[in-house]
Amino acid sequence: MYDLYIANKNYSSWSLRPWLVLRELGIPFNEHMVPFDEEPRWVELRKISPSGKVPCLDDNGTKIWESSAIVEYLAERHPNVWPSDPAARDWARCAAAEMHAGFGNLRSRCTMNCGVRARLHEVPPELTKDITRLAGLWNDGLSRFGGPFLAGKAFTAVDAFFGPVAYRIQTYGLTLDDTAAAYAARLLALPSMQSWYADALRETARPPSQESALEKMATVFEDLRAKAG
Amino acid sequence: MYDLYIANKNYSSWSLRPWLVLRELGIPFNEHMVPFDEEPRWVELRKISPSGKVPCLDDNGTKIWESSAIVEYLAERHPNVWPSDPAARDWARCAAAEMHAGFGNLRSRCTMNCGVRARLHEVPPELTKDITRLAGLWNDGLSRFGGPFLAGKAFTAVDAFFGPVAYRIQTYGLTLDDTAAAYAARLLALPSMQSWYADALRETARPPSQESALEKMATVFEDLRAKAG
Repeated sequence: MYDLYIANKNYSSWSLRPWLVLRELGIPFNEHMVPFDEEPRWVELRKISPSGKVPCLDDNGTKIWESSAIVEYLAERHPNVWPSDPAARDWARCAAAEMHAGFGNLRSRCTMNCGVRARLHEVPPELTKDITRLAGLWNDGLSRFGGPFLAGKAFTAVDAFFGPVAYRIQTYGLTLDDTAAAYAARLLALPSMQSWYADALRETARPPSQESALEKMATVFEDLRAKAG
Repeated sequence: MYDLYIANKNYSSWSLRPWLVLRELGIPFNEHMVPFDEEPRWVELRKISPSGKVPCLDDNGTKIWESSAIVEYLAERHPNVWPSDPAARDWARCAAAEMHAGFGNLRSRCTMNCGVRARLHEVPPELTKDITRLAGLWNDGLSRFGGPFLAGKAFTAVDAFFGPVAYRIQTYGLTLDDTAAAYAARLLALPSMQSWYADALRETARPPSQESALEKMATVFEDLRAKAG
């Protein structure tokens, strides 16, 4: 059985990706939380993950870190992680890789914080550029492979890579065209996304490292999360 | 025949990775330069690459963008892109993925500029942390799989992902332990790396977007590049 190490569900966008792949494809795994800002987090993390970061998959002692490497590891062992159609698979890998290393403004200005609703202080041109590219990429996949998922009829790893963005769109009320907005809504409605979200709302930890990133960029007008204590 | 679109060799760290894989594995390809800061770069780039960025591989009309997706695309079609030993392959994918999305301080503070030698204004703790992790990761691969390359006897894609870092180490004179320094020297001595470097030195364009990134962080004390005009 796989062991997947993740951080707080309210905040950890990187953790969500392999978690979604495992859940949506029905691959059994044990889930382990290593919360942000708790000591001895770093000492413990070094024992769990070679990079000292989550997510990390432990397959009976074989450690696989980095969400995109975890996905390729799973793809070598389970069907349907990537689309079986070669053209869809090629496109899916490009789109997932673009999300893995790109969209820097979207990631730094709209940090993942599932349980709040917030208004950005400003939407600078570089953020608009990222959102425009995101919508363009989604429209491209949906029209090319016929939807309802990015690379065709079934959920695959490329959809998992955009799971965190769906929460960001919800949290910050980002505006997209109808096709892209409908795709984000479909992601949010997935049973796995609903389950992650419910868990995120139940978390009571408010690590300053995570909350301050949001407060710099936006004003929270609604907090749906459980109250601490 | 593949067509690989890249940017200026002196600066484009992302372009170098798939280029090195193709060259070191002897896979034939045509190389096309889309220089930084030249108009109509963006208009032209949109036609070449769906993300508007290089590198982009064009395989008879199939466009593959993002260095890590290009590598997986090649790995489905050519032997030896990744190590054939499963443990080495798993590790190699993790290390390459970590380079693809991580080492943010190393990338932003030591931008790739092959042809100059520079002294950093300062080495802040977050840069030291990246360099320590880099050396740790290299030592791990070299001791685990026996060298001389990161995942064993042969050059594979994971070595290509660290090609740009070897130039950064040379440019900024970064200090590493002996094992890591010797690996960086082996990368710099590869025929493909020597050829890229020679081409970089011949380039005369000095795009402000690239040069200013270096000038913010470091003082150039030697410039080995060709003089313009």
